[in-house]
Amino acid sequence: MAYEFFYWPEIQGRGEFVRLALEDAGAAYIDVARGLESEGRGVPAMLALMHGEGTSHLPFAPPFLRDGKTIVSHTATILLYLGGRVGLAPGDEDGRLWTHQIQLTITDIVKEVYNSHHPIDEDKWFHEQKDEAVARAAVFRRDRLPKFLGWFERILAANPAGADHLVGNFVTYADLSLFQLIEGLRFAFPVASERELASLPRVTALHDAVAMRPRLKAYLASERRVPFKETGIFRRYPELDG
Amino acid sequence: MAYEFFYWPEIQGRGEFVRLALEDAGAAYIDVARGLESEGRGVPAMLALMHGEGTSHLPFAPPFLRDGKTIVSHTATILLYLGGRVGLAPGDEDGRLWTHQIQLTITDIVKEVYNSHHPIDEDKWFHEQKDEAVARAAVFRRDRLPKFLGWFERILAANPAGADHLVGNFVTYADLSLFQLIEGLRFAFPVASERELASLPRVTALHDAVAMRPRLKAYLASERRVPFKETGIFRRYPELDG
Repeated sequence: MAYEFFYWPEIQGRGEFVRLALEDAGAAYIDVARGLESEGRGVPAMLALMHGEGTSHLPFAPPFLRDGKTIVSHTATILLYLGGRVGLAPGDEDGRLWTHQIQLTITDIVKEVYNSHHPIDEDKWFHEQKDEAVARAAVFRRDRLPKFLGWFERILAANPAGADHLVGNFVTYADLSLFQLIEGLRFAFPVASERELASLPRVTALHDAVAMRPRLKAYLASERRVPFKETGIFRRYPELDG
Repeated sequence: MAYEFFYWPEIQGRGEFVRLALEDAGAAYIDVARGLESEGRGVPAMLALMHGEGTSHLPFAPPFLRDGKTIVSHTATILLYLGGRVGLAPGDEDGRLWTHQIQLTITDIVKEVYNSHHPIDEDKWFHEQKDEAVARAAVFRRDRLPKFLGWFERILAANPAGADHLVGNFVTYADLSLFQLIEGLRFAFPVASERELASLPRVTALHDAVAMRPRLKAYLASERRVPFKETGIFRRYPELDG
C-alpha cells in the first residue's frame, strides 16, 4: 500500500526532506494535500486528520505520514520510520540512531534559518520585523552557519567508512537532507553560503553527488518539485545575506 | 556498567530531561562533567570527547550519553535510546515512536523558551537584546504557549488508555519531560503559565502525579538537582511575563 504523506502543498518547507527520501527510494506514496478535494484529498483532508476525533496520535503540525494505521509526525521521526523500510538507513540500532542524530541537527539549523527572517512573530510579515531579522541573520551568518556546516564537514571526515557519505558506505536519508539544506542555504544566502562552502570540500562533494542520483535528478526536474519561494523556510531577502 | 552522561554541570538545561529519566528509573549513571578533573572527569573530559579524534559519532553539542562504545546525542534521541532499556517507554515500535514524537514537540517549545530571552544573539546578554526579547516573549505567551500546552491537553484526552499518561497506561519519559516543562514554565513565566494551566486540568494533574513519584521526589529534594537560574533555558525575567 502506498504511503500517505501530508504537508502544505505550496512550499518545500520541512516536508521536502521527506519527499526527497520517498522520491529517491522510488517509494509509492500519495502527496495527500496536493490531491483533489473532490477525491477526499487536499488541505482539508490534512486538517481533518490533525484536528479529528478518533486520532490518538494527533500531529502537532505537518508534515506527517500515514502508513496503514500508523501515523508518524516530525520530519526526523518520519525519516527514522521510513529509513530502514525504503533502504535509506543502516539496519543496526547504532547506525539508525546516528543517522537520526544527524537529521535532528539539520532540524535545528532549519529552525534557525526560519528564525533568521521571522525572529519575533510567525504570524507577521517579514517587513514588519525586518530590523530584528537583519540583526539575527548577521549572527546566523557569522556564528551559526559556520558552526553547523563545519560540524557536517567534521563528521564526514570522521566517518570510518570514508567521507563520501555521512553514515557508513552508502546513501542514507541524512545525505539527502544535507543536500536539501545546502540547496536551501544557497537559495537564501547565496553570498554567505558560497563563502562557507569554499572551505568545506566534503560537504560540497556530497551535495554534488546526491544531485546526480537518477531518481532524485528526475524529481528535481519535475513539476512535483515545488520551487523555493518567499513563503517557505528558505527565503531570499538580500538584506539578510552578505 | 553505569551510563556516562555528559552535560554542563551548572544548569538544568536540556540535560535535565535525561537526568529525570535516569533518576526516576533508578539507573546507575555517572554525571561526568560534574566529576573531578583529578579523576578524569569534569567539563574538560566532556569537551575532549566532543572534539576528540577517534570519535566517529561526534556530538554537535551536549547533552550526550555514552553506553560502552555507543555515543548518543540530542536529548530526544538519548531518551529514545534509554526509554526501553530503563522501563520508561513502550516496547512496540508504534508506541516508542509516538513517545519520541511527543518528546520532539517538547524540544521545539524548549527552543522557543530559549529564544524568548535570546531572540537575536546567543552570545550576548539578555539586557543587550531586551527590547526584542520583550516583543518575542509577548508572542510566545499569546500564541505559542497556548498552542503547545493545548496540544498536550488534547493528546492526554485522546489517549485510548486514559488521560493519566501521555502514552499508554504507564509512565514514560514523555510524562517526566512534560513535568519538567511545566516546572520550567512556572519558574520563567509564573503569571502566564498559571493563566494557561487553569484551563488544562489533565496537564496539571499529570504534572502533580509525576512530582509524587518517590525516586523523582527524592531527586528533586537532593543536591543533585541544580536550581533554576538565569543562565539556563528557563529564566525568570519579569519583563517577559504577564
